Amino acid sequence: MDEIADQQPLRASSDQISEFAANALMAAGTQLDAAQSVANALTETSLRGIDSHGIRLLLHYIKAVQGGRINPNPKLAFTRSGAGTGIVDGDDGFGHHARYFAIDRAVALAQETGIGAVSVINSSHFGAAGSYVLRAAHQGFAGLGFCNSDSFVLAHDGRHSFHGTNPIAFAAPVPGEQPFLLDMATSVVPWNRVQDYLMEGLSLPPDVTVDSSGEPTIDPAQSDALLPLGGTFFGYKGAGLASMIEILCAVMTGSPHCSRLPAMKGPDFSTPRRLGHFFLVIDYRRFVSHQIYAAGMHGYLRDLRSQSAKAGRRVMAPGDREWSIMEERKQRGIPVMRCLREELDCLSDDLGIRRITYSE
Amino acid sequence: MDEIADQQPLRASSDQISEFAANALMAAGTQLDAAQSVANALTETSLRGIDSHGIRLLLHYIKAVQGGRINPNPKLAFTRSGAGTGIVDGDDGFGHHARYFAIDRAVALAQETGIGAVSVINSSHFGAAGSYVLRAAHQGFAGLGFCNSDSFVLAHDGRHSFHGTNPIAFAAPVPGEQPFLLDMATSVVPWNRVQDYLMEGLSLPPDVTVDSSGEPTIDPAQSDALLPLGGTFFGYKGAGLASMIEILCAVMTGSPHCSRLPAMKGPDFSTPRRLGHFFLVIDYRRFVSHQIYAAGMHGYLRDLRSQSAKAGRRVMAPGDREWSIMEERKQRGIPVMRCLREELDCLSDDLGIRRITYSE
Repeated sequence: MDEIADQQPLRASSDQISEFAANALMAAGTQLDAAQSVANALTETSLRGIDSHGIRLLLHYIKAVQGGRINPNPKLAFTRSGAGTGIVDGDDGFGHHARYFAIDRAVALAQETGIGAVSVINSSHFGAAGSYVLRAAHQGFAGLGFCNSDSFVLAHDGRHSFHGTNPIAFAAPVPGEQPFLLDMATSVVPWNRVQDYLMEGLSLPPDVTVDSSGEPTIDPAQSDALLPLGGTFFGYKGAGLASMIEILCAVMTGSPHCSRLPAMKGPDFSTPRRLGHFFLVIDYRRFVSHQIYAAGMHGYLRDLRSQSAKAGRRVMAPGDREWSIMEERKQRGIPVMRCLREELDCLSDDLGIRRITYSE
Repeated sequence: MDEIADQQPLRASSDQISEFAANALMAAGTQLDAAQSVANALTETSLRGIDSHGIRLLLHYIKAVQGGRINPNPKLAFTRSGAGTGIVDGDDGFGHHARYFAIDRAVALAQETGIGAVSVINSSHFGAAGSYVLRAAHQGFAGLGFCNSDSFVLAHDGRHSFHGTNPIAFAAPVPGEQPFLLDMATSVVPWNRVQDYLMEGLSLPPDVTVDSSGEPTIDPAQSDALLPLGGTFFGYKGAGLASMIEILCAVMTGSPHCSRLPAMKGPDFSTPRRLGHFFLVIDYRRFVSHQIYAAGMHGYLRDLRSQSAKAGRRVMAPGDREWSIMEERKQRGIPVMRCLREELDCLSDDLGIRRITYSE
């Protein structure tokens, strides 16, 4: 096989990917609804082109469930604590399962009271934060979701990693179109972006990472921690957002904060991580009529997308790129690189489940 | 007077500043409660050291009320639209007045239902976004506030200003201490920071502004628009947050978005700006006991503040710098530069009110 062909991904349909993921998780002992939640989230994320948080993570999740970190048969519980508030106990199961459950409860609260706030306790990693607020938007509600993570990012003026990459996700319905979708880490880039530069043998842009002594570096191999969004000069903004998210997801849920969380990457794969999350769901119809909302949203997005752009670029709204990738991947399938195909094939052999069939 | 003494600020007590502001606004026709709201907000902001949004803005507000943009005698109205939601109509009065009113309504909703969401319509500029969420925190609630503004900031990959500086403010109680307080524009810096560099004859850091053709510049005199937080490479994050805020504050309130707002700086000072705002207030006791919240908050802040820092720096929590400045200014008074003193003296002559007395 020549070098170039070797780098070309093969493709598999989203149905196949989703079925494979669910089968693998069930073969590892996960109950049906939890396995389906994880499979849905991973496939939807791969379809949107967020490969770092898509099907690639299946291997990690299998390891976490086999190691005992993840409870494969959780009993999710919802406690309503106010007309507009509630707490989901994830019972140390998959974060995806707990978060879908939580966002549905938050939507139900918002239907009733106009706004719902739901925290999640005893949870774990859940893939991409956007998947869950999207579920609210697809039901006609705006959703705002937060999560912390273990340490990858400097505090502002700090020298070593402290905060997690602590994402913010926001989705809102756009009548007649796919939803508006923002899903961003509060670090300059996510950690896996640094890995991409490393694998491609490229230097990083300046002001993205520091080395183990806290000095700026553009060498991905020397990178030890990420800078908060805003970089060296203005990182108090990214770090401030990360702090806000620690308060919402850890302090306000009684869960460990960033530097006290067991690391996602192990080596401990047996201790539950006790991650906390926080969600808000808003019924926009309590603030403005659907007609005025639709006109305002279309008018805003039209003005945004028609902004004069830099040479060779186009001004897009958050989500535009994802929806166009999804369109293409729904038609052509989800691309899977050789390295990942081999790992998934090994997994199917280990678990005794049918392999994915790829095409070009 | 020699050059150096000329640059030294003189100081006035916060009581004097507040009384002067209220008197000036009332002399310009503003009703008592509205004048007091503006005076409170400006003084509190100056005390925290945010001079760009403090007493300096009084002259602008007097101009806006005299020009007819601001209704000096607004009747604020609150319409409850759900158990957890409501809308404040600011009646084209001062944004400060409408926002204090709105945050108090949101606190009342959160007391009842666990979370309150309140939008504000027909409002105007309100100074610093932090002032209002602080009011929630001082009452024992977490507050999250958003506002858009007229165009100062590029869309990501854009060439000309489109979004406002669209701040996010978040405050949360810290038992036994001043609140946690984050108050940040979603641009790299606020516009007045560029003016500071200009006045001091300094070059800007790279990747902060563009000139009128959309090319990066470090010359404050050539700067025409701000980059979104994240700069040239990662500005999709700052721009994405700005977009979210347009949706919450303009689309969801039926108010004009960024590029459709009359400019704060005029020349039109007679047309009401119809700004929209959006607030969330959260009762943390619906998610965790006060004891666990207090322990979690103190533990998180202790870990954050004890992070190993770069040479000559100290890792601080959002708000730490403001509270230490406030302590000093409560003792020594609020510093006012000569240029502003002269303007305030002129204003007192014009309006026939008593001048501020300064000391060194």
